[in-house]
Amino acid sequence: MGDSEIIYLDNAATTKIDSAVIEKMKIALEEYGNPNSSHELGNRAKNLVEESRIHVANMINAKPEEIIFTSGGTESNNWAVYSSVCTTKKRTIFSSEIEHHSIHQSIHEFRKSIGTKGHFVPVNADGEVDINYFQERMDNGVGLVSIMMANNEIGTIQPIKKLAEIAHRYGILFHTDAVQAAGKIKIDVKDLNVDMLSLSGHKFHGSKGVGILYVKSGINLHPMISGGHQENGYRAGTYNVPGIVGIGEAARLVNSQEIMDEIGLKAQLFWVGMKTSISDIERNGNPNLSVPGVVNVCFKGVEAKAIVLELSKRGVCCSSGSACNEGTTIPSHVLKAIGCSTYKSHSSIRFSFSRFTTKEDIYRALEIIVEVIKEHREKC
Amino acid sequence: MGDSEIIYLDNAATTKIDSAVIEKMKIALEEYGNPNSSHELGNRAKNLVEESRIHVANMINAKPEEIIFTSGGTESNNWAVYSSVCTTKKRTIFSSEIEHHSIHQSIHEFRKSIGTKGHFVPVNADGEVDINYFQERMDNGVGLVSIMMANNEIGTIQPIKKLAEIAHRYGILFHTDAVQAAGKIKIDVKDLNVDMLSLSGHKFHGSKGVGILYVKSGINLHPMISGGHQENGYRAGTYNVPGIVGIGEAARLVNSQEIMDEIGLKAQLFWVGMKTSISDIERNGNPNLSVPGVVNVCFKGVEAKAIVLELSKRGVCCSSGSACNEGTTIPSHVLKAIGCSTYKSHSSIRFSFSRFTTKEDIYRALEIIVEVIKEHREKC
Repeated sequence: MGDSEIIYLDNAATTKIDSAVIEKMKIALEEYGNPNSSHELGNRAKNLVEESRIHVANMINAKPEEIIFTSGGTESNNWAVYSSVCTTKKRTIFSSEIEHHSIHQSIHEFRKSIGTKGHFVPVNADGEVDINYFQERMDNGVGLVSIMMANNEIGTIQPIKKLAEIAHRYGILFHTDAVQAAGKIKIDVKDLNVDMLSLSGHKFHGSKGVGILYVKSGINLHPMISGGHQENGYRAGTYNVPGIVGIGEAARLVNSQEIMDEIGLKAQLFWVGMKTSISDIERNGNPNLSVPGVVNVCFKGVEAKAIVLELSKRGVCCSSGSACNEGTTIPSHVLKAIGCSTYKSHSSIRFSFSRFTTKEDIYRALEIIVEVIKEHREKC
Repeated sequence: MGDSEIIYLDNAATTKIDSAVIEKMKIALEEYGNPNSSHELGNRAKNLVEESRIHVANMINAKPEEIIFTSGGTESNNWAVYSSVCTTKKRTIFSSEIEHHSIHQSIHEFRKSIGTKGHFVPVNADGEVDINYFQERMDNGVGLVSIMMANNEIGTIQPIKKLAEIAHRYGILFHTDAVQAAGKIKIDVKDLNVDMLSLSGHKFHGSKGVGILYVKSGINLHPMISGGHQENGYRAGTYNVPGIVGIGEAARLVNSQEIMDEIGLKAQLFWVGMKTSISDIERNGNPNLSVPGVVNVCFKGVEAKAIVLELSKRGVCCSSGSACNEGTTIPSHVLKAIGCSTYKSHSSIRFSFSRFTTKEDIYRALEIIVEVIKEHREKC
């Protein structure tokens, strides 16, 4: 199947790299100096890294020196957890029930080495964290609050500014995983007043293998990967110059409000199209509280995994859960947290859109989906 | 200064990406699916990752399932240290005095969180670890031995097979940092019988931002970055597909014995050329015990940092220490360990060669170096 026949509706898993980003990365692949070297080639590579840092800082209204490059959102999330325990000596981490696995599992895994203890705030049927529950349980024994800005499966946006403000009353560090917010809603670290924030390049048309951890000036940080003077000694390892150039260019080209609105309209068109053509479907989460571009649908009586495979055969790429969880039969912890039964969870499919999704993609995808669901239901 | 005028003699810091590697990476940049997704685009990306895994496995005589992709040699080294403490519950790590900072500093930093304790085996004037010292101090309270296969500053090759054999007598895990060995000497994990081994893509004409940790079948591993099912749950995070494709192609094209011999001959030509034209110079380390392609020279009475900058202005790229240590005024811990004074250390420059270094590069570099050293000495 050629690329032209593929309708890609899995942008929450990863996005197509923008062709302008690829062009910049090609230049960076040829510019092979080590940014840490003192010579001409090193300086040229270093300049590319620092230019990217400025673009990323501008994207989230940070200062360039507050941006640390990592290997991706997962490393950034793990690091925020690890660092907070090392610097505060407080092991309790508050998070939500619907965080990405890189928060949940890192808390779990670091329990064995540094003694982390997780406390997971419940969410309502829309996926919003229970602020009262959260507020009542905050105390200065907590080392870190890590709550995602937008959920990866249903798109729910959390009231980060409010939550950070509550945490700060108790002197608690606040981290947000903004991986799924990038390119979908505006991210302003000054306005949110978070202490740390994670981004991943490939979720907003940059390359895989690179992310950032934003760390507010003055916040203590403990290295998780050490052994060099890169990033002021906080994150060692030779700079991933091509990846960093990619995330910088992706940040420079990040969706404007207008484009974000358009993505939202396309998602709405898709959902309305489905609702008018397919019976017994239900949308998980609440679109009014979510980032644009994520439509998570429960198709009553169908097996999502089988549908995803059949849709793929017919050229439509979508997902039966988060990509990091694919290949398992465990029902989505996000859908479970918002009250979906295992049965409903196994019948749910996530469609996610980007600035490259065209109206034609949507109309064609709708035709194929209607057909596949009909055939599947007739068989069962 | 154009690229054609640059003579790159800093291949121990990083290497030029092979043009064939760049071509493969360009394809991977367009192939944007998430390897963890179940659909067509995901499968295509997954196939690229698995193909690369086979190439890397073949390069070091491992099984594909023993290769885990990381963000680079530094992460791999940190992880080996971290994992060994988590799995063995033994905190003492034996290493050498001349390891890369990613071993030394990770032992130091993890001391604060998981209680690592480092024990650093001395080396002789050639940079060889003192086997008797090592053997006498081995006991089953040690959790890990991590000794590099080849040193990054002076090139010394360690007797890894012998050291691993001693460690194994006490049931101790053995890790080797083979980052500087790749492309310079043959690496055969079966023959060496190591439990873990680190590689970095950009040291053998792959891309920056990607490395591997080889983990022998049956060896327990504890994740350092968790939160997804990638790499059987041992290393989470969306696969860096372009980087992985790059290291795979670089592994496929890794220098043959013939090319490695040629690099050695070029380095010899360079050294002999210098010795016959510049007085009061001394070679650090022992070329007979080293990987080909590293010439570390002490120029009596010169300030290495100033020379490196002047050489860079005239088109020759080299280094006054390891790239990870550039920008500091701390004398090289490697040169110190082999008995060099601070004075000699600050007068030492590393020149390192690759398959892309031509004889013309060497002759031209020699002319420039002779000139620069002469001018510098006349001024002082």
